[in-house]
Amino acid sequence: MTDNDDGVRRGEQRIALPPADDARLRFIGRIRTPWASRADCPKNSRDAMAQGDAARCVIELDPLYEAGLKDLASFSHVWAIYWMDQARRDLIVQAPRHLDGSRGVFALRSPARPNPLAMAAARLVAIEGTRLTVIGVDCLDGTPLVDLKPYFASTDSIPDAVRPSA
Amino acid sequence: MTDNDDGVRRGEQRIALPPADDARLRFIGRIRTPWASRADCPKNSRDAMAQGDAARCVIELDPLYEAGLKDLASFSHVWAIYWMDQARRDLIVQAPRHLDGSRGVFALRSPARPNPLAMAAARLVAIEGTRLTVIGVDCLDGTPLVDLKPYFASTDSIPDAVRPSA
Repeated sequence: MTDNDDGVRRGEQRIALPPADDARLRFIGRIRTPWASRADCPKNSRDAMAQGDAARCVIELDPLYEAGLKDLASFSHVWAIYWMDQARRDLIVQAPRHLDGSRGVFALRSPARPNPLAMAAARLVAIEGTRLTVIGVDCLDGTPLVDLKPYFASTDSIPDAVRPSA
Repeated sequence: MTDNDDGVRRGEQRIALPPADDARLRFIGRIRTPWASRADCPKNSRDAMAQGDAARCVIELDPLYEAGLKDLASFSHVWAIYWMDQARRDLIVQAPRHLDGSRGVFALRSPARPNPLAMAAARLVAIEGTRLTVIGVDCLDGTPLVDLKPYFASTDSIPDAVRPSA
């Protein structure tokens, strides 16, 4: 799987990171998914959506925050922002197996990044109390949640956005 | 502007927050914008985009992370993830002036939230070294940057996503 004992592949580059003490997060819940290992996870949220009901996940919000869900059920889609707590943070250039060659971390959606935040636009299936059933997250079971935001097509949907073909 | 000395408006609700010590962020840069006060800021990233060149901003990435920008210039749009360091974190129900009535924080894109992360899909105008010129961010000058991600229309663009009409 890797080219050396540090788990760094050929073409990858590490940096020495400064201390992470500029701001602090509280986890506000956990994401329950069917996936216990990285190999089981969907490739991305589109892949999760394509799996349909097989990719149903439950966002368990801490009951402390229940009032914050008021009115969210009127939206069809929600952004889940989560913390990839098992990801390393020092790989500034990465060589994902699905790509030819290496890419800068900011040109990738890899979980390994200086601040391992991930986000997925998920379809909101149901809200029961502080349990949100969604389709479109792609993370490991138990991943910590740090935010939920409504999806606004007016600002978030850019259908003609261009990406490299490779 | 507010209904009492705590800056809490009628219809709003606070909670007592637990300590924020589950995870730590490092700021990886700053966002330079034309806006020095909240009243000057665009309403959202769509409003910023509508302003065109007048809303050009420069994301100044810390040079430590320069290698992470490799290949990003091939994308037309980028997600800027930033930390709203002047926002309060305890307003679980909010009454924004542009809405009739109150909403749960997770049904709003307000900067005030348990973890004051904000994100904007911005058009990438140019990259020079570690300076990214973009249009589409809407934050105060000097806002700390915590992540950059490529925009993928395949996963991020949901043109038919529904939101409440009010």
